[in-house]
Amino acid sequence: MTKDEFYMGKALEEAATAYAVGEIPIGAVIIYEKKAIARAYNLRESLPCATAHAELLAIEKACRALGRWRLTGCTLYVTVEPCPMCAGAIVNSRLDRIVYGCADPKAGAVRSVFQIVDTPALNHCTAVTQGIREKECARLMTDFFRSRRQK
Amino acid sequence: MTKDEFYMGKALEEAATAYAVGEIPIGAVIIYEKKAIARAYNLRESLPCATAHAELLAIEKACRALGRWRLTGCTLYVTVEPCPMCAGAIVNSRLDRIVYGCADPKAGAVRSVFQIVDTPALNHCTAVTQGIREKECARLMTDFFRSRRQK
Repeated sequence: MTKDEFYMGKALEEAATAYAVGEIPIGAVIIYEKKAIARAYNLRESLPCATAHAELLAIEKACRALGRWRLTGCTLYVTVEPCPMCAGAIVNSRLDRIVYGCADPKAGAVRSVFQIVDTPALNHCTAVTQGIREKECARLMTDFFRSRRQK
Repeated sequence: MTKDEFYMGKALEEAATAYAVGEIPIGAVIIYEKKAIARAYNLRESLPCATAHAELLAIEKACRALGRWRLTGCTLYVTVEPCPMCAGAIVNSRLDRIVYGCADPKAGAVRSVFQIVDTPALNHCTAVTQGIREKECARLMTDFFRSRRQK
Protein backbone atom coordinates (compact mmCIF):
# COMPACT_ATOMS: atom_id res chain seq x y z
CA MET A 1 0.00 0.00 0.00
CA THR A 2 1.40 3.39 -0.99
CA LYS A 3 1.46 6.39 1.35
CA ASP A 4 -1.37 8.00 -0.63
CA GLU A 5 -3.50 4.84 -0.38
CA PHE A 6 -2.84 4.68 3.36
CA TYR A 7 -3.92 8.27 4.01
CA MET A 8 -6.93 7.90 1.70
CA GLY A 9 -7.97 5.09 4.04
CA LYS A 10 -8.37 7.67 6.80
CA ALA A 11 -10.54 9.82 4.53
CA LEU A 12 -12.57 6.71 3.70
CA GLU A 13 -13.14 6.09 7.42
CA GLU A 14 -14.54 9.62 7.71
CA ALA A 15 -16.76 9.06 4.68
CA ALA A 16 -18.08 5.85 6.25
CA THR A 17 -19.03 7.83 9.36
CA ALA A 18 -20.92 10.33 7.20
CA TYR A 19 -22.74 7.42 5.56
CA ALA A 20 -23.71 6.03 8.98
CA VAL A 21 -25.31 9.32 10.07
CA GLY A 22 -27.21 9.77 6.79
CA GLU A 23 -24.93 12.39 5.22
CA ILE A 24 -23.59 12.18 1.65
CA PRO A 25 -20.52 9.99 2.31
CA ILE A 26 -17.51 12.22 1.72
CA GLY A 27 -14.56 12.32 4.10
CA ALA A 28 -11.34 14.33 4.28
CA VAL A 29 -8.07 14.33 6.20
CA ILE A 30 -5.16 16.79 6.20
CA ILE A 31 -1.62 15.51 6.67
CA TYR A 32 1.23 17.68 7.96
CA GLU A 33 4.65 16.21 8.69
CA LYS A 34 3.23 12.67 8.35
CA LYS A 35 0.54 13.37 10.96
CA ALA A 36 -3.23 13.71 10.50
CA ILE A 37 -3.83 17.18 11.94
CA ALA A 38 -7.48 17.39 10.83
CA ARG A 39 -10.21 14.88 9.94
CA ALA A 40 -13.77 15.69 8.94
CA TYR A 41 -16.85 14.41 7.16
CA ASN A 42 -19.77 16.09 5.47
CA LEU A 43 -22.21 17.60 8.00
CA ARG A 44 -24.52 19.62 5.77
CA GLU A 45 -27.80 18.06 6.93
CA SER A 46 -26.78 17.54 10.56
CA LEU A 47 -25.81 21.12 11.35
CA PRO A 48 -27.61 22.18 9.01
CA CYS A 49 -25.14 24.36 7.08
CA ALA A 50 -24.51 24.76 3.34
CA THR A 51 -20.76 25.17 3.83
CA ALA A 52 -20.22 22.10 6.04
CA HIS A 53 -18.45 19.97 3.43
CA ALA A 54 -15.73 17.59 4.61
CA GLU A 55 -12.90 19.56 2.93
CA LEU A 56 -13.97 22.94 4.32
CA LEU A 57 -14.34 21.58 7.86
CA ALA A 58 -10.94 19.86 7.60
CA ILE A 59 -9.28 23.07 6.38
CA GLU A 60 -10.80 25.03 9.28
CA LYS A 61 -9.60 22.41 11.78
CA ALA A 62 -6.11 22.43 10.25
CA CYS A 63 -5.92 26.24 10.53
CA ARG A 64 -6.82 25.94 14.22
CA ALA A 65 -4.31 23.10 14.73
CA LEU A 66 -1.44 25.04 13.17
CA GLY A 67 -2.52 28.51 14.34
CA ARG A 68 -2.17 29.97 10.85
CA TRP A 69 -4.34 30.36 7.76
CA ARG A 70 -1.60 29.28 5.33
CA LEU A 71 -1.55 25.48 5.16
CA THR A 72 1.84 25.36 3.48
CA GLY A 73 3.39 21.92 3.90
CA CYS A 74 -0.01 20.21 4.09
CA THR A 75 -1.74 17.66 1.84
CA LEU A 76 -5.52 17.21 1.77
CA TYR A 77 -6.96 13.75 1.08
CA VAL A 78 -10.63 13.65 0.13
CA THR A 79 -12.72 10.77 -1.17
CA VAL A 80 -14.55 12.74 -3.90
CA GLU A 81 -13.41 15.55 -6.22
CA PRO A 82 -14.09 18.91 -4.47
CA CYS A 83 -16.89 21.30 -5.52
CA PRO A 84 -16.11 24.95 -6.47
CA MET A 85 -16.41 26.12 -2.84
CA CYS A 86 -13.95 23.53 -1.53
CA ALA A 87 -11.57 23.91 -4.49
CA GLY A 88 -11.55 27.65 -3.77
CA ALA A 89 -10.84 26.98 -0.09
CA ILE A 90 -7.90 24.75 -1.13
CA VAL A 91 -6.40 27.67 -3.09
CA ASN A 92 -7.19 30.19 -0.33
CA SER A 93 -5.41 28.04 2.27
CA ARG A 94 -2.32 27.56 0.04
CA LEU A 95 -2.39 23.78 0.43
CA ASP A 96 0.63 22.12 -1.21
CA ARG A 97 -1.27 19.21 -2.65
CA ILE A 98 -4.67 17.61 -2.91
CA VAL A 99 -5.36 13.91 -3.47
CA TYR A 100 -8.86 12.71 -4.32
CA GLY A 101 -10.49 9.37 -4.93
CA CYS A 102 -13.27 9.54 -7.51
CA ALA A 103 -14.31 12.33 -9.87
CA ASP A 104 -17.55 14.33 -9.60
CA PRO A 105 -18.53 14.89 -13.24
CA LYS A 106 -21.48 17.15 -12.25
CA ALA A 107 -19.85 19.63 -9.87
CA GLY A 108 -16.15 18.74 -9.58
CA ALA A 109 -14.01 21.88 -9.67
CA VAL A 110 -10.49 20.40 -9.73
CA ARG A 111 -10.71 18.67 -13.11
CA SER A 112 -14.33 18.00 -14.19
CA VAL A 113 -16.34 21.26 -14.53
CA PHE A 114 -13.73 23.82 -13.45
CA GLN A 115 -9.97 23.59 -12.89
CA ILE A 116 -9.77 25.95 -9.93
CA VAL A 117 -6.79 24.70 -7.90
CA ASP A 118 -4.24 25.15 -10.67
CA THR A 119 -5.55 28.16 -12.56
CA PRO A 120 -2.49 30.36 -13.26
CA ALA A 121 -4.62 33.53 -12.86
CA LEU A 122 -5.12 32.84 -9.14
CA ASN A 123 -2.29 33.52 -6.71
CA HIS A 124 -1.57 29.91 -5.77
CA CYS A 125 -1.44 26.53 -7.49
CA THR A 126 -2.03 23.26 -5.64
CA ALA A 127 -0.65 19.97 -7.03
CA VAL A 128 -3.28 17.33 -7.84
CA THR A 129 -3.33 13.53 -7.67
CA GLN A 130 -6.56 11.74 -8.55
CA GLY A 131 -7.90 8.18 -8.65
CA ILE A 132 -6.47 6.92 -5.34
CA ARG A 133 -8.71 4.08 -4.06
CA GLU A 134 -11.18 5.38 -6.61
CA LYS A 135 -13.52 2.37 -6.63
CA GLU A 136 -13.98 2.32 -2.85
CA CYS A 137 -14.66 6.06 -2.79
CA ALA A 138 -17.17 5.84 -5.66
CA ARG A 139 -18.81 2.73 -4.22
CA LEU A 140 -19.76 4.54 -1.00
CA MET A 141 -21.48 7.24 -3.07
CA THR A 142 -23.41 4.90 -5.37
CA ASP A 143 -24.50 2.72 -2.43
CA PHE A 144 -25.68 5.80 -0.54
CA PHE A 145 -27.75 7.25 -3.37
CA ARG A 146 -29.17 3.84 -4.30
CA SER A 147 -30.37 3.21 -0.74
CA ARG A 148 -31.81 6.74 -0.56
CA ARG A 149 -33.80 6.23 -3.76
CA GLN A 150 -35.21 2.98 -2.36
CA LYS A 151 -36.57 4.75 0.73
CA MET B 1 -31.44 55.70 -2.61
CA THR B 2 -32.55 52.34 -4.04
CA LYS B 3 -33.15 49.26 -1.91
CA ASP B 4 -29.91 47.71 -3.22
CA GLU B 5 -27.93 50.85 -2.36
CA PHE B 6 -29.44 50.87 1.13
CA TYR B 7 -28.52 47.24 1.89
CA MET B 8 -25.06 47.69 0.36
CA GLY B 9 -24.62 50.42 2.97
CA LYS B 10 -24.86 47.71 5.65
CA ALA B 11 -22.20 45.64 3.87
CA LEU B 12 -20.04 48.77 3.66
CA GLU B 13 -20.36 49.24 7.43
CA GLU B 14 -19.06 45.68 7.90
CA ALA B 15 -16.19 46.38 5.49
CA ALA B 16 -15.28 49.51 7.45
CA THR B 17 -15.07 47.40 10.63
CA ALA B 18 -12.72 44.98 8.86
CA TYR B 19 -10.56 47.94 7.81
CA ALA B 20 -10.44 49.19 11.40
CA VAL B 21 -9.12 45.85 12.71
CA GLY B 22 -6.51 45.50 9.97
CA GLU B 23 -8.35 42.99 7.79
CA ILE B 24 -8.82 43.34 4.02
CA PRO B 25 -11.97 45.52 4.03
CA ILE B 26 -14.75 43.33 2.68
CA GLY B 27 -18.18 43.16 4.28
CA ALA B 28 -21.34 41.15 3.63
CA VAL B 29 -24.96 41.09 4.73
CA ILE B 30 -27.78 38.64 3.95
CA ILE B 31 -31.34 39.92 3.63
CA TYR B 32 -34.41 37.71 4.13
CA GLU B 33 -37.92 39.18 4.09
CA LYS B 34 -36.46 42.71 4.25
CA LYS B 35 -34.46 41.90 7.38
CA ALA B 36 -30.67 41.56 7.80
CA ILE B 37 -30.41 38.03 9.21
CA ALA B 38 -26.60 37.85 8.97
CA ARG B 39 -23.76 40.37 8.85
CA ALA B 40 -20.05 39.61 8.68
CA TYR B 41 -16.65 40.94 7.71
CA ASN B 42 -13.42 39.30 6.69
CA LEU B 43 -11.62 37.70 9.67
CA ARG B 44 -8.85 35.75 7.94
CA GLU B 45 -5.95 37.23 9.90
CA SER B 46 -7.79 37.62 13.22
CA LEU B 47 -8.89 34.01 13.62
CA PRO B 48 -6.61 33.03 11.72
CA CYS B 49 -8.52 30.94 9.17
CA ALA B 50 -8.26 30.70 5.38
CA THR B 51 -12.02 30.29 4.96
CA ALA B 52 -13.08 33.27 7.11
CA HIS B 53 -14.19 35.51 4.25
CA ALA B 54 -17.13 37.86 4.85
CA GLU B 55 -19.48 35.98 2.49
CA LEU B 56 -18.76 32.53 3.94
CA LEU B 57 -19.21 33.75 7.51
CA ALA B 58 -22.46 35.49 6.55
CA ILE B 59 -23.79 32.34 4.84
CA GLU B 60 -22.97 30.26 7.94
CA LYS B 61 -24.74 32.79 10.18
CA ALA B 62 -27.78 32.85 7.89
CA CYS B 63 -28.02 29.02 7.96
CA ARG B 64 -27.99 29.18 11.77
CA ALA B 65 -30.57 32.00 11.79
CA LEU B 66 -33.00 30.14 9.52
CA GLY B 67 -32.20 26.62 10.78
CA ARG B 68 -31.72 25.29 7.26
CA TRP B 69 -28.88 25.02 4.73
CA ARG B 70 -30.96 26.21 1.78
CA LEU B 71 -31.00 30.02 1.76
CA THR B 72 -33.92 30.21 -0.68
CA GLY B 73 -35.53 33.65 -0.46
CA CYS B 74 -32.27 35.34 0.57
CA THR B 75 -30.09 37.97 -1.11
CA LEU B 76 -26.39 38.39 -0.28
CA TYR B 77 -24.85 41.87 -0.49
CA VAL B 78 -21.06 42.00 -0.53
CA THR B 79 -18.74 44.92 -1.19
CA VAL B 80 -16.31 43.05 -3.50
CA GLU B 81 -16.86 40.32 -6.12
CA PRO B 82 -16.59 36.90 -4.41
CA CYS B 83 -13.61 34.54 -4.86
CA PRO B 84 -14.13 30.93 -6.12
CA MET B 85 -14.68 29.62 -2.57
CA CYS B 86 -17.39 32.16 -1.77
CA ALA B 87 -19.00 31.91 -5.21
CA GLY B 88 -19.18 28.15 -4.67
CA ALA B 89 -20.74 28.68 -1.23
CA ILE B 90 -23.35 30.95 -2.83
CA VAL B 91 -24.35 28.14 -5.21
CA ASN B 92 -24.22 25.50 -2.45
CA SER B 93 -26.57 27.56 -0.25
CA ARG B 94 -29.05 28.13 -3.12
CA LEU B 95 -29.08 31.90 -2.57
CA ASP B 96 -31.64 33.63 -4.81
CA ARG B 97 -29.48 36.60 -5.66
CA ILE B 98 -26.12 38.19 -5.06
CA VAL B 99 -25.34 41.90 -5.28
CA TYR B 100 -21.76 43.12 -5.23
CA GLY B 101 -20.04 46.48 -5.31
CA CYS B 102 -16.74 46.38 -7.19
CA ALA B 103 -15.15 43.69 -9.34
CA ASP B 104 -12.06 41.68 -8.40
CA PRO B 105 -10.24 41.25 -11.74
CA LYS B 106 -7.60 38.93 -10.19
CA ALA B 107 -9.74 36.37 -8.34
CA GLY B 108 -13.40 37.27 -8.89
CA ALA B 109 -15.44 34.15 -9.59
CA VAL B 110 -18.85 35.64 -10.42
CA ARG B 111 -17.85 37.51 -13.59
CA SER B 112 -14.10 38.19 -13.77
CA VAL B 113 -12.04 34.94 -13.76
CA PHE B 114 -14.83 32.34 -13.41
CA GLN B 115 -18.62 32.58 -13.74
CA ILE B 116 -19.49 30.11 -11.00
CA VAL B 117 -22.86 31.29 -9.67
CA ASP B 118 -24.70 30.96 -12.97
CA THR B 119 -22.97 28.01 -14.62
CA PRO B 120 -25.78 25.86 -16.11
CA ALA B 121 -23.79 22.67 -15.34
CA LEU B 122 -24.16 23.21 -11.58
CA ASN B 123 -27.48 22.45 -9.91
CA HIS B 124 -28.43 26.03 -9.02
CA CYS B 125 -28.15 29.47 -10.60
CA THR B 126 -28.03 32.66 -8.54
CA ALA B 127 -29.05 36.01 -10.07
CA VAL B 128 -26.32 38.67 -10.15
CA THR B 129 -26.34 42.46 -9.82
CA GLN B 130 -23.01 44.27 -9.84
CA GLY B 131 -21.71 47.81 -9.50
CA ILE B 132 -23.87 48.95 -6.55
CA ARG B 133 -22.01 51.73 -4.66
CA GLU B 134 -19.00 50.51 -6.63
CA LYS B 135 -16.73 53.51 -5.99
CA GLU B 136 -17.16 53.41 -2.21
CA CYS B 137 -16.50 49.66 -2.14
CA ALA B 138 -13.39 49.98 -4.33
CA ARG B 139 -12.14 53.04 -2.42
CA LEU B 140 -11.97 51.10 0.86
CA MET B 141 -9.80 48.47 -0.85
CA THR B 142 -7.40 50.89 -2.57
CA ASP B 143 -7.03 52.96 0.64
CA PHE B 144 -6.31 49.79 2.64
CA PHE B 145 -3.63 48.44 0.30
CA ARG B 146 -2.05 51.89 -0.14
CA SER B 147 -1.70 52.34 3.62
CA ARG B 148 -0.34 48.80 4.00
CA ARG B 149 2.33 49.42 1.36
CA GLN B 150 3.38 52.57 3.18
CA LYS B 151 3.97 50.68 6.45
